[in-house]
Amino acid sequence: MNKLINAPERIVDELIEGYIAAYGDYVSRIKDRRVVVRAKPKATGKVGLVIGNGSGHEPIAVGWVGRGMLDANALGEIFAAPAPTLIADAVRVADRGAGVLLLVSQHAGDVINAELAVELARGEGIDVEPLFMYDDIASAPKGREDERRGAPGTTFIYKIVGARAEEGADLAELKSLGERVRDNTRTLAAAVAPGISPLTGEPMFTLPEGEIFLGMGVHGEPGFRRMKSASADEVVATMTEGILADLPFESGNEVLAFVNGAGGTTLMELLIAYRALAATLAERGIRAHRPLVGEYITTQEMAGFSISLCRTDAEMKRLWDAPVAVPFFHR
Amino acid sequence: MNKLINAPERIVDELIEGYIAAYGDYVSRIKDRRVVVRAKPKATGKVGLVIGNGSGHEPIAVGWVGRGMLDANALGEIFAAPAPTLIADAVRVADRGAGVLLLVSQHAGDVINAELAVELARGEGIDVEPLFMYDDIASAPKGREDERRGAPGTTFIYKIVGARAEEGADLAELKSLGERVRDNTRTLAAAVAPGISPLTGEPMFTLPEGEIFLGMGVHGEPGFRRMKSASADEVVATMTEGILADLPFESGNEVLAFVNGAGGTTLMELLIAYRALAATLAERGIRAHRPLVGEYITTQEMAGFSISLCRTDAEMKRLWDAPVAVPFFHR
Repeated sequence: MNKLINAPERIVDELIEGYIAAYGDYVSRIKDRRVVVRAKPKATGKVGLVIGNGSGHEPIAVGWVGRGMLDANALGEIFAAPAPTLIADAVRVADRGAGVLLLVSQHAGDVINAELAVELARGEGIDVEPLFMYDDIASAPKGREDERRGAPGTTFIYKIVGARAEEGADLAELKSLGERVRDNTRTLAAAVAPGISPLTGEPMFTLPEGEIFLGMGVHGEPGFRRMKSASADEVVATMTEGILADLPFESGNEVLAFVNGAGGTTLMELLIAYRALAATLAERGIRAHRPLVGEYITTQEMAGFSISLCRTDAEMKRLWDAPVAVPFFHR
Repeated sequence: MNKLINAPERIVDELIEGYIAAYGDYVSRIKDRRVVVRAKPKATGKVGLVIGNGSGHEPIAVGWVGRGMLDANALGEIFAAPAPTLIADAVRVADRGAGVLLLVSQHAGDVINAELAVELARGEGIDVEPLFMYDDIASAPKGREDERRGAPGTTFIYKIVGARAEEGADLAELKSLGERVRDNTRTLAAAVAPGISPLTGEPMFTLPEGEIFLGMGVHGEPGFRRMKSASADEVVATMTEGILADLPFESGNEVLAFVNGAGGTTLMELLIAYRALAATLAERGIRAHRPLVGEYITTQEMAGFSISLCRTDAEMKRLWDAPVAVPFFHR
């Protein structure tokens, strides 16, 4: 294993300590707990935004705690959902008297633990609502969208709802806005090589030489089909056709577009992929508004990328463009 | 090869096209030339900042063209310096009547081509000065600093001189400021696995299992010594001791610190490395001011990272903290 760590069981604590040592002007933590919070809490009377997620996907979600995005992130072990009590800690600290929206990227462990955390927090009198996020078209067929997994398209929710929360919208409006973003978002991922688990030192899946997995999940969940290795243009065209057909996106639509690198794919390649995506969208009469290209939600050094599209409207665009001050989101 | 490209000979043009398609609100290009420029040029009467560099290291330097940093970037082929005429094109477009500072990360091809470009531009009456940048302590012994290679510590120069150029300082002052930053900066890199050349599909070097190269250059130039694989804390301590001794940095110094990922190393690991660096600096009585951690200067999927330190002063800190609006630099 070529990873530079100290010991697998110390990874999560040490990455939090390193993050706060480097970016302490942005973030802090709950003492002795794996919960990263804003260095300067949001003003009283504004709704808090919380996420709990497994570690090993950095920069998400620790990198997005700060003004204009999240208030607190509960960090689980590598690729494992945080415990309900830890999520409840994050909810408690994020509550500024106006309630908390708990963002849940839909995976079995995350959903169960989030539901328990909601019960715990409500038992303490906190007004908390979960928002289940799902955008991966590979994980369940059309018509059963609410059974799908969370994937990098959840990024649109963090940014847009985060900006509106900063403006002081109430909990009901934020949940409804998040649902609107989610229901207009679709993602599909492709993987060309596995990441290495930092716990075992072993590849997270195997893939025959010269093949590409379409529909790979962010924890290395199996793709829904394989394709033969092809040019970037061909791979992107295949992915984009699947995404466009699913919502469906239509001529005249305006979209937010996001090409997310899985960890081991260069920015050079992501830019070539975005070029192909832009060409396909233009052919279909679809306009992209201020796209995002980069490594944000990673699966260790997995090679590949995902494409996420969100059919947008004037309010969503305004909030996507709104200022944000976090260490690892920059549009 | 697991890269998602179309054809090796089209990489550079396609990455530029993709970059401008995605970030056209920030950047544009000289028509049909591999020169990326600001979408909105700097005001007349301010000094332009230009760099020419090989492609394949993204996000640097295309990602740093914009307000507060660079005015133009001439892109060479993969890992190859751009032609003198191309650098001269970039200098010409960046000249807003107050001259141009040409930043040159010191590598043989870059130096030769930059010198020829300076001659060409001066022949057209443009007031252009080169600033040769070198910070890699592994590439020549102490006392022969000006023979050293450019390495990720050049980042401090782009940001600090970029901010001061935006404020309207003249060419002589900017060159002198850049030299002051350079002369206070030291970098050392470690590699644990090679990147794959997108041209050949082959690893850029070989490294025995269980060994780490110290002093690896940004093009995979051989390191100056090998060490046995060790914990992140041990590797960082060894690197930091070398860097601190070279300037030397001393108790009471304040530094800018930068942990740069080479491409295939996760942010999780970079944060663990920064934690170790912060501990070593604290032990020595050295304070770090707003450090930077992330993948900025890459060598494809090479695994490893570099540590750069710059002994700073009040003016450098102010300029490091100054606003910047480019797609791929965010502190």
